[in-house]
Amino acid sequence: MSNHVYRVTEIVGTSPDGIDAAIRSGIQRASTTIRGLDWFEVTEVRGHIVDGEIGHYQVGLKVGFRLDAPE
Amino acid sequence: MSNHVYRVTEIVGTSPDGIDAAIRSGIQRASTTIRGLDWFEVTEVRGHIVDGEIGHYQVGLKVGFRLDAPE
Amino acid sequence: MSNHVYRVTEIVGTSPDGIDAAIRSGIQRASTTIRGLDWFEVTEVRGHIVDGEIGHYQVGLKVGFRLDAPE
Amino acid sequence: MSNHVYRVTEIVGTSPDGIDAAIRSGIQRASTTIRGLDWFEVTEVRGHIVDGEIGHYQVGLKVGFRLDAPE
Amino acid sequence: MSNHVYRVTEIVGTSPDGIDAAIRSGIQRASTTIRGLDWFEVTEVRGHIVDGEIGHYQVGLKVGFRLDAPE
Amino acid sequence: MSNHVYRVTEIVGTSPDGIDAAIRSGIQRASTTIRGLDWFEVTEVRGHIVDGEIGHYQVGLKVGFRLDAPE
Amino acid sequence: MSNHVYRVTEIVGTSPDGIDAAIRSGIQRASTTIRGLDWFEVTEVRGHIVDGEIGHYQVGLKVGFRLDAPE
Amino acid sequence: MSNHVYRVTEIVGTSPDGIDAAIRSGIQRASTTIRGLDWFEVTEVRGHIVDGEIGHYQVGLKVGFRLDAPE
Amino acid sequence: MSNHVYRVTEIVGTSPDGIDAAIRSGIQRASTTIRGLDWFEVTEVRGHIVDGEIGHYQVGLKVGFRLDAPE
Amino acid sequence: MSNHVYRVTEIVGTSPDGIDAAIRSGIQRASTTIRGLDWFEVTEVRGHIVDGEIGHYQVGLKVGFRLDAPE
Amino acid sequence: MSNHVYRVTEIVGTSPDGIDAAIRSGIQRASTTIRGLDWFEVTEVRGHIVDGEIGHYQVGLKVGFRLDAPE
Amino acid sequence: MSNHVYRVTEIVGTSPDGIDAAIRSGIQRASTTIRGLDWFEVTEVRGHIVDGEIGHYQVGLKVGFRLDAPE
Repeated sequence: MSNHVYRVTEIVGTSPDGIDAAIRSGIQRASTTIRGLDWFEVTEVRGHIVDGEIGHYQVGLKVGFRLDAPE
Repeated sequence: MSNHVYRVTEIVGTSPDGIDAAIRSGIQRASTTIRGLDWFEVTEVRGHIVDGEIGHYQVGLKVGFRLDAPE
Repeated sequence: MSNHVYRVTEIVGTSPDGIDAAIRSGIQRASTTIRGLDWFEVTEVRGHIVDGEIGHYQVGLKVGFRLDAPE
Repeated sequence: MSNHVYRVTEIVGTSPDGIDAAIRSGIQRASTTIRGLDWFEVTEVRGHIVDGEIGHYQVGLKVGFRLDAPE
Repeated sequence: MSNHVYRVTEIVGTSPDGIDAAIRSGIQRASTTIRGLDWFEVTEVRGHIVDGEIGHYQVGLKVGFRLDAPE
Repeated sequence: MSNHVYRVTEIVGTSPDGIDAAIRSGIQRASTTIRGLDWFEVTEVRGHIVDGEIGHYQVGLKVGFRLDAPE
Repeated sequence: MSNHVYRVTEIVGTSPDGIDAAIRSGIQRASTTIRGLDWFEVTEVRGHIVDGEIGHYQVGLKVGFRLDAPE
Repeated sequence: MSNHVYRVTEIVGTSPDGIDAAIRSGIQRASTTIRGLDWFEVTEVRGHIVDGEIGHYQVGLKVGFRLDAPE
Repeated sequence: MSNHVYRVTEIVGTSPDGIDAAIRSGIQRASTTIRGLDWFEVTEVRGHIVDGEIGHYQVGLKVGFRLDAPE
Repeated sequence: MSNHVYRVTEIVGTSPDGIDAAIRSGIQRASTTIRGLDWFEVTEVRGHIVDGEIGHYQVGLKVGFRLDAPE
Repeated sequence: MSNHVYRVTEIVGTSPDGIDAAIRSGIQRASTTIRGLDWFEVTEVRGHIVDGEIGHYQVGLKVGFRLDAPE
Repeated sequence: MSNHVYRVTEIVGTSPDGIDAAIRSGIQRASTTIRGLDWFEVTEVRGHIVDGEIGHYQVGLKVGFRLDAPE
């Protein structure tokens, strides 16, 4: 049995609704193209402000997934 | 046309309800005195605990805004 | 009157529902065994992904409490 | 009752006498113009050397204070 | 003779021409409203990309100046 | 309207001419294969020295771009 | 002869008198309940301000001690 | 089913033989007193030098374990 | 002659045998799909613990390679 | 007139008396062999504990000095 | 064939003309006394401001060189 | 009895065989020219890759030694 190797990709999820929603938005988008997503880690939380209100949250994420076979 | 310059100020928003609410609380307060808020960045998340429950969340924020004319 | 000394312990709270819920989960568990919890600080936010959806959030916390008398 | 919001400002206190004195120097100066100082955090400790002796200590400080009403 | 105290403010200078130009842009803007600027420190270098070319550089700066008298 | 998601890729641009040139070199190369580059962030500045002179600058960059549709 | 293993615990010492006094306060309290304290490391220096004066210093400490036998 | 909560403790494993051996030494010692160790993370690698040779390696570790029931 | 540009990808190599083996495992896997791997940098060392023993080491790696032609 | 170049060397000053004394101890020792010491920066504060009391403080310092002529 | 060992020294290059010039100034000065300089890494960018203009840039550099034989 | 002062120098040890071997290589080389080496600390682990295999490991080290008398 061989040792597993994982790849980590970095994305930014966004949402007008909050941090959790921005994370989910990013994970869902990544899952449409990457099989076997395994974990995530938040790297930064930022956001844009429009007319004194939060326009959208931007959450940086590292997302890891197992490499099943040579890419 | 001149190059824009931005100023960054640091605040701490608080709320008993959660992290998003603490961020909004801080941004709303800042927007009452600063025109042209443009972005924010979370620098830390802390909180106070009272009788074993979270009393309030404290979210450190850097808030950026454009300097339109000499301050 | 003597100077207070605090102890800081590190935990990871988890929840399928979001970051705030994971923090509350961790604080509530800690409060069952530690008297006088005083503050917390988030050290990292991670999570597991199952079938392309967030299985649960994992929030690292430092939790501080006052030492009332020799441990 | 509304949620409190705090502002954090950054200063550098200096003193030829030591780190504690440099901190006190900075806090005392800040308190002459800012009401309601609440906490400080040391960000760096540096100093100048003159003729092989410490000329003065320079202590970077973040200083927090509550915003009572719109600035 | 009293000990000097300095204040540090954070700005972002921008320029389409490069990092040095973005720094100068920020310093010049700050000097129109703050007397006695003394030093700066670069905190981050970012930029926007437009049509595959760098639209402008954004250089985060901490800028220090001596407080001559109560603010 | 859906929430945007961005991907961040990491590159190292090089140039014998200076930091700005190394950044431009990296961005231009990335733009030949990635549509919709949006921002960059400098992560480190290094270089090689040959015969006591700078042979070339190496500038680490995080480069962000919007994911328009499933990758 | 077996290899030594150490445990590291985190505390916050406080004192109205200064940083050194806050460190000593924390170490002395820890030594009432932990045998064999070996070293400490300062992790942060903060403090509370009351009426424009420093009320007390708070010094975060990691404190290491040797595990002599199974805990 | 309740959400799991984990505790993280910090130790330093040592060995004259190398980094891996120092990690194993620390984990084995911790497992004699803590049930349910789940993961570790290396926080620093240091060592002592005796007569120009490495006397022993010191590897800082954070070690996590699940809290099954109130401590 | 044009300036070289490099791409950096992040992986996690694992092995039950130790840190060096986990690094080699990751590099070998990456080399099956990426031509021209040039350097690596360790970003973190973690591991899982099973029955009080190290089940496998997980070593985070940034891996750089030269972009020979438009991707 | 040529541009100045500075060299930075790293030392650890120690003292049983406190942090300031440890810094002075290090600076005084460095000044016996290096001409033109110009500034210092504290990089870490640690210490040894003996019988539950602080045996000595260890303060890491970066010390800068101007290179007047080729070394 | 033996394994190479490198030494890393830290300098600060300065120039009134910009960051690249300050780096070159530091490298050229270092090369007058050290043979075999191999690489550099920028650790910080600071500067002094005089009359609202940048007086000179100060660029911290780590500079590496191979040790050919016992020093 | 005077307080001890230590000096810290930075080196990079290399080896084709692994991290421990690279550390030993660096320490042994340093010990040929520096008396009284006392401790080391790993600052980074990197390596070169040749033909898809690790050519050599490069381990950054800070090495401390006591200054017995004016340098």
